[in-house]
Amino acid sequence: MVENDKPMNETLKQKMYLLLEDQKGLDPRARLVRAFLVILILLNVLAAIMETMEEISAIYRHIFRVFEYFSVAIFTVEYAARMWVCDEGMGNAGIIGRIKHALRPLMLVDLLAILPFYLPFLLPADLIFLRAIRLMRLLRVLKLGRYSDAIHVFFSVIRLKKEQLAVAGFGLGILLIIAASMMYYFEHLVQPAIFGSIPHSMWWAIITLTTVGYGDAYPVTAMGRVLASIIALLGIGMFALPAGILSAGFVEYGEKKKKNGTSCPHCGAPLAAPDDPDESSHS
Amino acid sequence: MVENDKPMNETLKQKMYLLLEDQKGLDPRARLVRAFLVILILLNVLAAIMETMEEISAIYRHIFRVFEYFSVAIFTVEYAARMWVCDEGMGNAGIIGRIKHALRPLMLVDLLAILPFYLPFLLPADLIFLRAIRLMRLLRVLKLGRYSDAIHVFFSVIRLKKEQLAVAGFGLGILLIIAASMMYYFEHLVQPAIFGSIPHSMWWAIITLTTVGYGDAYPVTAMGRVLASIIALLGIGMFALPAGILSAGFVEYGEKKKKNGTSCPHCGAPLAAPDDPDESSHS
Amino acid sequence: MVENDKPMNETLKQKMYLLLEDQKGLDPRARLVRAFLVILILLNVLAAIMETMEEISAIYRHIFRVFEYFSVAIFTVEYAARMWVCDEGMGNAGIIGRIKHALRPLMLVDLLAILPFYLPFLLPADLIFLRAIRLMRLLRVLKLGRYSDAIHVFFSVIRLKKEQLAVAGFGLGILLIIAASMMYYFEHLVQPAIFGSIPHSMWWAIITLTTVGYGDAYPVTAMGRVLASIIALLGIGMFALPAGILSAGFVEYGEKKKKNGTSCPHCGAPLAAPDDPDESSHS
Amino acid sequence: MVENDKPMNETLKQKMYLLLEDQKGLDPRARLVRAFLVILILLNVLAAIMETMEEISAIYRHIFRVFEYFSVAIFTVEYAARMWVCDEGMGNAGIIGRIKHALRPLMLVDLLAILPFYLPFLLPADLIFLRAIRLMRLLRVLKLGRYSDAIHVFFSVIRLKKEQLAVAGFGLGILLIIAASMMYYFEHLVQPAIFGSIPHSMWWAIITLTTVGYGDAYPVTAMGRVLASIIALLGIGMFALPAGILSAGFVEYGEKKKKNGTSCPHCGAPLAAPDDPDESSHS
Repeated sequence: MVENDKPMNETLKQKMYLLLEDQKGLDPRARLVRAFLVILILLNVLAAIMETMEEISAIYRHIFRVFEYFSVAIFTVEYAARMWVCDEGMGNAGIIGRIKHALRPLMLVDLLAILPFYLPFLLPADLIFLRAIRLMRLLRVLKLGRYSDAIHVFFSVIRLKKEQLAVAGFGLGILLIIAASMMYYFEHLVQPAIFGSIPHSMWWAIITLTTVGYGDAYPVTAMGRVLASIIALLGIGMFALPAGILSAGFVEYGEKKKKNGTSCPHCGAPLAAPDDPDESSHS
Repeated sequence: MVENDKPMNETLKQKMYLLLEDQKGLDPRARLVRAFLVILILLNVLAAIMETMEEISAIYRHIFRVFEYFSVAIFTVEYAARMWVCDEGMGNAGIIGRIKHALRPLMLVDLLAILPFYLPFLLPADLIFLRAIRLMRLLRVLKLGRYSDAIHVFFSVIRLKKEQLAVAGFGLGILLIIAASMMYYFEHLVQPAIFGSIPHSMWWAIITLTTVGYGDAYPVTAMGRVLASIIALLGIGMFALPAGILSAGFVEYGEKKKKNGTSCPHCGAPLAAPDDPDESSHS
Repeated sequence: MVENDKPMNETLKQKMYLLLEDQKGLDPRARLVRAFLVILILLNVLAAIMETMEEISAIYRHIFRVFEYFSVAIFTVEYAARMWVCDEGMGNAGIIGRIKHALRPLMLVDLLAILPFYLPFLLPADLIFLRAIRLMRLLRVLKLGRYSDAIHVFFSVIRLKKEQLAVAGFGLGILLIIAASMMYYFEHLVQPAIFGSIPHSMWWAIITLTTVGYGDAYPVTAMGRVLASIIALLGIGMFALPAGILSAGFVEYGEKKKKNGTSCPHCGAPLAAPDDPDESSHS
Repeated sequence: MVENDKPMNETLKQKMYLLLEDQKGLDPRARLVRAFLVILILLNVLAAIMETMEEISAIYRHIFRVFEYFSVAIFTVEYAARMWVCDEGMGNAGIIGRIKHALRPLMLVDLLAILPFYLPFLLPADLIFLRAIRLMRLLRVLKLGRYSDAIHVFFSVIRLKKEQLAVAGFGLGILLIIAASMMYYFEHLVQPAIFGSIPHSMWWAIITLTTVGYGDAYPVTAMGRVLASIIALLGIGMFALPAGILSAGFVEYGEKKKKNGTSCPHCGAPLAAPDDPDESSHS
């Protein structure tokens, strides 16, 4: 990595790389760029939310439009700059390196943030489609993921326990199918509007097993209530099981980190994990 | 085990064993059979769900019937084949070995998946009974359990903590009985339709303690609300207790696995546990 | 302890002690007595529940009464016998020893199970009082606590973490008071029937923070909804905190047990804890 | 620290310091003062709650007023005394030391407890403002925080895991924004009153993800229900994640405490943590 040893006589490209991609956060100008982008993303989310409130959007329509043009311009420049400097320090040399860089999750999110704006120019669009496009701007909130380092811990823990979590999810799916089909059998003659088919009673099963319990669908027959009671009690296990798995995952992760001692002092994420290219910029 | 050393001159029975029961997943044809069976099970579940939607079942009645005949034929052949090859490599020699094999949970599930189809031919049946039989096809989803290895971890953890989990369940039962009887006393004069007997107020107690809270039954008297508040707060403990027990169970399991080092590299389940015959096919 | 070395020439009192108080469960007659008492308790709970169902109690009134007389007779004999033999093997010599024994939680529960029957003969009673008395029979379910050994684990873990659990409960109380008073301020003018006083909005606060959410009380003002959102999100922490505390408690308990090695091989409870007289019968 | 070695010839200021700030709780008079203040705080909370019940406040208005004057007098004297003695034993010498002491969280809470009473005398106030002021007395419950030692454990665990908890909260925020905007898109044409804007559907999203589920807002379209099902299922993870993080935090905290061995024997909090000035009074 060049940028640490002789940052004095850096080219424009190296400067840009420092501003956008340097993760150490030492450079005050890079911090300023980060802060500006984070604030711009948050303002974009706020604007997209407020535009759905008719009493506000009716008055400030023009301001929202100007702010949208401004934001897309900035985000497009940012995307182009990131693609330009990606062969600096991260080893994305050549065309293939650039394509690989463009397919990284964070770069795809950046593309997703500006694409909705350009789509209506590329495709014939009707009004409904346009409305969906406008809401897709809210996905810009995902761009914030770039600025959170500790997120790696979660992916590590989930990767550590992925089989167990998958089995828990699989058991949840089987439980939902059996609960929904039994409840359909008990209730569909008494409440045909609510438990009229298994997909309908699946709605009840999910809302009960997750303990949300809106109250729009609940059994009234004795057998249905016995079944619902069992499902609700099993719902406790459906919370306890992933909580237990993740607890053990976080404990194991903490112990592994302590043993290795090669974790980033800033965020606690393990350094230079060979299967995680996003972390290579730490070392 | 013969099948690994000289797979070239294998008999049809050995081939069948390899296709159906070999857990190592090395053989590409065995993988194909697994994938086909998993997809067939999922399609069966989908079909049974869609058949309850009248707008669909009215049109495609014949397709559903043909698919059902096809599926039962396949699953029957699969069951017969599994029973035939069970004396290969798993040591189920003789009649007693075969009966023991037939009584294993996974084989019982396989039987349960095809039995509903044959039952109406064996027993006199009325219409209501037929409908229940048709829904029992959804139990075919349990056949998927065969294809999940990590499920052993859960059974190990639950076995490790079975006394504590039983005590938590026992405490839950006592709490439900006391809560339901007290709430019956406070509310049955004011809301006789909802809290008219202890089984009625038991419905309220379960839906409250599991924090589902449909809203079809809630106290309106001052004393009833004080009691419901206490029960709802104890509901937090009813979630925290099993979560804590299972957390410790998963942590202990992880430590034990690390010490022994004899876990399956594929799924993490401990190998050759003497009290679990299902795992013997790993070694 | 006499009963293990020479059980042949035992007196009636020693026999009785063996039948009722011996925790090792080696004697087959003692096991029979235990099973009989457990079944009798469960039948009593079932009877008390069924008596509140008018369609049943109207028909079988006499059977319920006879069963009640029978049960109280057995439980009274059991209580008397336990008081009689308590100076055998457990060191409750003299009057003071007997009084101490009578004040132990399990003996108080046994007294509570029979007292409701005798109370109307001792005190002048009206009808409402009688009904409450009849429901108190359901407290007999607490007698089952005597037959669960693993329950000691819970008390140990809770004792281990009692300060932290108390602080969590204290934080919950403060949160409830602040939430209820703020919600009262925001909503009591708009919904005077539901948020008319702080005790009323305390009902809302508890049902929301425990994530029960019946739907009988919810805010409709913008500020009220912002507050309710914050409270609901803090409700997640109110579940995660005790779950985390208890997880650490169970993990620590498991490690301590492993190190000491002086746990009961049957139930895992630590042996001869000096501050827990109930466990002395293990050694 | 002077107060332990020669408590006989202490001055009035030293006596006061002993009564109010000595954390060891050895002095019986200091215990009496603590108990009196705790009871006074609890009575104040009770009074503020009861004053909102019209049937009570109408009758006992004068008693409430007298009690309020009495309480504020005591709390004012307490605050003044704490400011006076703060240079004893805690090293708050000089003006700057006093100002630093006044800005400590516990001293700010003490100020907040009496300020609402004096505010109407300092500022012109209308009736609505007065009502808010009166409710602010309920914040006196926060004064109880001074008397709980184990609260330090929580702050230590949360500090230990602050990055991970922040990421979980950040993920929750992103999930809420995406869920609310998608549900707005699916439902706002069918239920314009309930899902009329993103802030409206944000209310639904929070009440669903926290599994409260009042039942005042729920989707009715097929796509809306599919989305709500996914959100409700992710709600399980939103409980399991912080539970897992805090579990690992409490386990790590327990292990660290064991290794250091420098914890307070009374409350288990680590002694003389260099970044926590509140704990300096322990040593």
